Amino acid sequence: MAENYRIATLAIHADDHHAHTSDIASPIHLSSTYAYNSDPAQLKTLKELKDAGGFHEDIIYSRYNQPVVVRIEEVLSKLLDGYAVAYSSGLSAFHAAMIYFNPKNVFIGQAYQGCKQILNILERNYGVKSHPLESASELIQPGDVIHLESPINPYGTAIDIEHYVKIAHSRGAFVLLDSTFAPPPLQFPFEFGVDMIMHSATKYFGGHSDLLAGVLVSKDPKVAEALHADRNYIGTITASLESWLMLRSLRTYDLRVRKQVANAVKIVKYLDEHRAEFPALKSLTHASLQKEEFVKRQLPLNGGPVFSIEVASPEIARILPSKTKLFHHATSLGGVESLIEWRAMSDSVISNTLLRISVGVEDADDLIEDLCNALKQL
Amino acid sequence: MAENYRIATLAIHADDHHAHTSDIASPIHLSSTYAYNSDPAQLKTLKELKDAGGFHEDIIYSRYNQPVVVRIEEVLSKLLDGYAVAYSSGLSAFHAAMIYFNPKNVFIGQAYQGCKQILNILERNYGVKSHPLESASELIQPGDVIHLESPINPYGTAIDIEHYVKIAHSRGAFVLLDSTFAPPPLQFPFEFGVDMIMHSATKYFGGHSDLLAGVLVSKDPKVAEALHADRNYIGTITASLESWLMLRSLRTYDLRVRKQVANAVKIVKYLDEHRAEFPALKSLTHASLQKEEFVKRQLPLNGGPVFSIEVASPEIARILPSKTKLFHHATSLGGVESLIEWRAMSDSVISNTLLRISVGVEDADDLIEDLCNALKQL
Amino acid sequence: MAENYRIATLAIHADDHHAHTSDIASPIHLSSTYAYNSDPAQLKTLKELKDAGGFHEDIIYSRYNQPVVVRIEEVLSKLLDGYAVAYSSGLSAFHAAMIYFNPKNVFIGQAYQGCKQILNILERNYGVKSHPLESASELIQPGDVIHLESPINPYGTAIDIEHYVKIAHSRGAFVLLDSTFAPPPLQFPFEFGVDMIMHSATKYFGGHSDLLAGVLVSKDPKVAEALHADRNYIGTITASLESWLMLRSLRTYDLRVRKQVANAVKIVKYLDEHRAEFPALKSLTHASLQKEEFVKRQLPLNGGPVFSIEVASPEIARILPSKTKLFHHATSLGGVESLIEWRAMSDSVISNTLLRISVGVEDADDLIEDLCNALKQL
Amino acid sequence: MAENYRIATLAIHADDHHAHTSDIASPIHLSSTYAYNSDPAQLKTLKELKDAGGFHEDIIYSRYNQPVVVRIEEVLSKLLDGYAVAYSSGLSAFHAAMIYFNPKNVFIGQAYQGCKQILNILERNYGVKSHPLESASELIQPGDVIHLESPINPYGTAIDIEHYVKIAHSRGAFVLLDSTFAPPPLQFPFEFGVDMIMHSATKYFGGHSDLLAGVLVSKDPKVAEALHADRNYIGTITASLESWLMLRSLRTYDLRVRKQVANAVKIVKYLDEHRAEFPALKSLTHASLQKEEFVKRQLPLNGGPVFSIEVASPEIARILPSKTKLFHHATSLGGVESLIEWRAMSDSVISNTLLRISVGVEDADDLIEDLCNALKQL
Repeated sequence: MAENYRIATLAIHADDHHAHTSDIASPIHLSSTYAYNSDPAQLKTLKELKDAGGFHEDIIYSRYNQPVVVRIEEVLSKLLDGYAVAYSSGLSAFHAAMIYFNPKNVFIGQAYQGCKQILNILERNYGVKSHPLESASELIQPGDVIHLESPINPYGTAIDIEHYVKIAHSRGAFVLLDSTFAPPPLQFPFEFGVDMIMHSATKYFGGHSDLLAGVLVSKDPKVAEALHADRNYIGTITASLESWLMLRSLRTYDLRVRKQVANAVKIVKYLDEHRAEFPALKSLTHASLQKEEFVKRQLPLNGGPVFSIEVASPEIARILPSKTKLFHHATSLGGVESLIEWRAMSDSVISNTLLRISVGVEDADDLIEDLCNALKQL
Repeated sequence: MAENYRIATLAIHADDHHAHTSDIASPIHLSSTYAYNSDPAQLKTLKELKDAGGFHEDIIYSRYNQPVVVRIEEVLSKLLDGYAVAYSSGLSAFHAAMIYFNPKNVFIGQAYQGCKQILNILERNYGVKSHPLESASELIQPGDVIHLESPINPYGTAIDIEHYVKIAHSRGAFVLLDSTFAPPPLQFPFEFGVDMIMHSATKYFGGHSDLLAGVLVSKDPKVAEALHADRNYIGTITASLESWLMLRSLRTYDLRVRKQVANAVKIVKYLDEHRAEFPALKSLTHASLQKEEFVKRQLPLNGGPVFSIEVASPEIARILPSKTKLFHHATSLGGVESLIEWRAMSDSVISNTLLRISVGVEDADDLIEDLCNALKQL
Repeated sequence: MAENYRIATLAIHADDHHAHTSDIASPIHLSSTYAYNSDPAQLKTLKELKDAGGFHEDIIYSRYNQPVVVRIEEVLSKLLDGYAVAYSSGLSAFHAAMIYFNPKNVFIGQAYQGCKQILNILERNYGVKSHPLESASELIQPGDVIHLESPINPYGTAIDIEHYVKIAHSRGAFVLLDSTFAPPPLQFPFEFGVDMIMHSATKYFGGHSDLLAGVLVSKDPKVAEALHADRNYIGTITASLESWLMLRSLRTYDLRVRKQVANAVKIVKYLDEHRAEFPALKSLTHASLQKEEFVKRQLPLNGGPVFSIEVASPEIARILPSKTKLFHHATSLGGVESLIEWRAMSDSVISNTLLRISVGVEDADDLIEDLCNALKQL
Repeated sequence: MAENYRIATLAIHADDHHAHTSDIASPIHLSSTYAYNSDPAQLKTLKELKDAGGFHEDIIYSRYNQPVVVRIEEVLSKLLDGYAVAYSSGLSAFHAAMIYFNPKNVFIGQAYQGCKQILNILERNYGVKSHPLESASELIQPGDVIHLESPINPYGTAIDIEHYVKIAHSRGAFVLLDSTFAPPPLQFPFEFGVDMIMHSATKYFGGHSDLLAGVLVSKDPKVAEALHADRNYIGTITASLESWLMLRSLRTYDLRVRKQVANAVKIVKYLDEHRAEFPALKSLTHASLQKEEFVKRQLPLNGGPVFSIEVASPEIARILPSKTKLFHHATSLGGVESLIEWRAMSDSVISNTLLRISVGVEDADDLIEDLCNALKQL
């Protein structure tokens, strides 16, 4: 695609040239294996391919590659402005990044607990050390990794990406950014110098709470090639229906995330302006309420679709999700349907008065009314 | 299931008690997230669960668990006579076993190249050393792992499992057996003392060449619990459609593998007895042709559904797959349709005159006729 | 749902109370049969149910009903403001309406050829007569049916619905409206007195060109009950994956159709204002270009997402679709991706210089540029 | 496929030549529409095709045809030894046969209630008369249809097909045979002169209780062409996932039906020989217990996998299904899992002491033990 299409167009057409058949909507490919060329003269053995130095791009076994994964990687590459590699989950993508960078030390601040659990396994087995983010400027060594998350889970607030990029790059270390909470066009992290972007594609790229997937993105095609090579053996390619559903989801991606972020900003603004009416509501966090200049630069649409509130007591936090009618009480985020989660349910180190809210594509006024009704009942 | 049902029955009913709805055929569950109990009084936070020491068995997020994976693990546990944990691919299962055992040294002989590639990654990053199988008796240390494959890919021949179990256990090391080529009732490896069984479930448990999956099995429920805990974070649970298709496949599992092994034994016997008619055919390997006593003990149905042939030249090996009408030229094995693969296509260290044949559930006489016709054309 | 939620909210939550499990995204139900209550005392035989006069709402066999069809019918009922019954295709819905109304005469004007083909079968077999729409005022009898389509395929222009409703109702006849080209909130046909609404749900309710489905809607629950009763036997319930995909599609329905109609209106306006630049473009039809007062009343968003153009010659019409990069040359409409079809390809009675354009959710300016580039090349 | 492959081989390879891609397991095609040829010179309009008299075999819209339906029709044609046309359900296939034959009178005996309900609709609307089977010899007219079912639902017993064929053919009438209860190789009805065969493919061709489908088969390709033409408009092609699952099912079809019928014959024999032990068991019906010569000729494997029992009272019939552990209490048949149904649950005209048993592919001895245990508890 030579032309400079906009995101809404790319989300639908970036993969057109990868269609193998005339189906307007891609088939679901599930075959684990693919027939070799029926002409013996066309066959190239693995040794012949290696000797020729060529990268083997044929589709021969679905753990290596399959047609729909090719398509989602093409679309994600265009949307994320780099070379995207798709995984079976956000955490298998994070794990793949750790296998690729192979750091001795990882610096990590407030971030998704799952990433920390993977780091625990790497420390348990292989002695990879985790350190607090703030110690990076002092301790970081060449080859180490700063793992940032911005906006931060569960707060929905931004941290200064460039600040950490400078620290890492001044010492020959790398920055991996988990941008799950603000996919394009909400945030374009390569503009701030990060080395690799990671997404739990389960969230906004999937967007319908019905698939697990992850993605890593690099500006360097050789990095993507190395990630593909490892993925072949680690066995963590995005699954068949998951890939297909994600391709389908990408068709409405631009509509969904713009609506979700607009809804979230509107709800946060309403709650912020009406705090006095809700005594149970103690605090409210979202990038749109942050004043720092770097926040505007990083998040041109004023944040992402997730924000958090703190309420007056754990008892209230426990009860609040049962009072909403439109917000389901469940973990996760990024789906078309709004969710609220008392975070203590799935995160044992977070404040037990915190509720994370993931805003869907429903009507914003219906969501405001529902949340306010629930808050009033406490 | 208290009763002693036979395999054909277990494959269909072992998971009956896990049905959440009245659907006779399980629904396909794809939700990434599941609503918490709507009664606030019933909610248990992660901290409350940890304090109570209880293992969290609720279904709350599909990277941890989901209803169909529960069902396939139940059926696989009954069929494999242990505690089964299901993965996204055979290699992600092997990788999980390496993360679980965390050996300093791995002893591996003739085995699937993919496993060796994972060992390469572990050596590259973490210094885990691979050694030839024959050096185990000399070099093995406590905590190390012998990784066996039997029957061996691509030959379909057996190696003496108990021999290696004795070596490992005499030194406090472990045996992981890749039993992919002979699932029950073709082989019951726990009878020979192995510590863990691994299967590429892509093969016979899937059986239709349309899914990727893997499984690890232990006799110890605590091991399965530890594997589940790691899998939660490594992000390699069997995918949604893959799980469901495997559950569907398990319903015909007993019929398929019995037919496949009977077909293979019949074809091998025919070829062996008619070698003189096929000058291009230089050799033939399959457990049914082995004379050793341990082979009969390990493989009561005379082997598995895969065997290999060597032909007179690489040119003949290249051409042979184009001469069969029923055997597709493709990698992989275990499916209902017979495959033939010139192994040099996907394995750069194997003899370039070898062809691996995976026998399906077609009529044995049709397969014999097709293969013989092809051999005669060379 | 007692509350007055808006369409964007209803599309996501109208079916919440039909969830059988805690899955946030509904499972795909495929079971053909469902276990009866395991308590013998709870069993009610068909005769007992009939004697009690009760309508049998249990889910027992998927040709009658299944959980996901219940959900899509609930959402469609809310969106379409009536009682919706879902079918396997738009034409099986039309056929069901013909079986329900059982008219002796059907009056039909410019309309989808497929409907006319069904009328041909009914005439061939059972003597049901088709007549031109304009003859209705003269010939229509009690029990007869006027089948309207508005906006009209392929022109995208509106006809005066109330005019035909008055004719039909003055004679005890019925109006069935095919509203496929303008689903809510583009058009609310019950406001104009039609007796039944039909949609090819393949189009905007499906919206991703990956499913076939149809729907009939009545304001009378007894009519829906009668349609369900017939559907049980005619065997035309929406299929399993189709139902599930449609439920998934409905979550983004409001976003999609609003974007599609806005895109279409913008493109039509651009082409209309720049006609002079495109000598090959002879005419342009869309409701937004109609001046009649009833058009504004029927189509508050200025039409639907389909319009047609006529070009200077059949040769140009044949070539034009090969010149666009974003509009695929294919039949059908309603999907996220824009399509252009030289209608002569699939309609043998339409002008052979006409091209039908279905506008997707891409960026409007990208679409305008693509179409103009194509027109300039002719 | 020129060669005379056996059923087990045909079930896996009859569709090989319809593969569009190199996938060993077919993709699931869901696209509703397919791109036309991108070369304008290759386009043929509908009028051009009609003028050339050619039948339009391209895949352009999934209501007409799609790649997986082409494949299942090819396999079913080989298995059923005729030209097969696939439908959305068994009843939509029956309805299509009625639309094709367009009889004034239909003669029908003991048969599936659903077929009778369709005949009720045709009588209600169009005056098509249903008559008892035994009146055929007296009343039948040219163009009329005898609709036979053999083996008969729910008894599993055979009726003399040739007898009715003679009556029909002597008067220029047709015989439609519902062969659902005994698909090949259990029964080959064209050998007995029937004009068309119908199957609820939901049953043995699907075989996993997870899809609805139907099939009509004719020896005359022109009949299949006419059926396809009508199906295009009636909108009752087999759905996307249903087609794909059926193709997958067909791969194990031969294994399943042979095991199911062998299981059923074994169970019936056991019950018949041990009647004295089960006072609650009043009678037992299955083709294997019939003595007539035509039964052996029609059913070379001694019947089909369904049989019925009558018990001593309706109360016992109500309770029996709650006493089995392996037989689920549900309607339908043909699946891998055994079912038992108190027929009064879904059939209001059958004896209320009758239970229909559909035998699956479990171990026969496990099934016998389970059924006997249940009978002993009454």
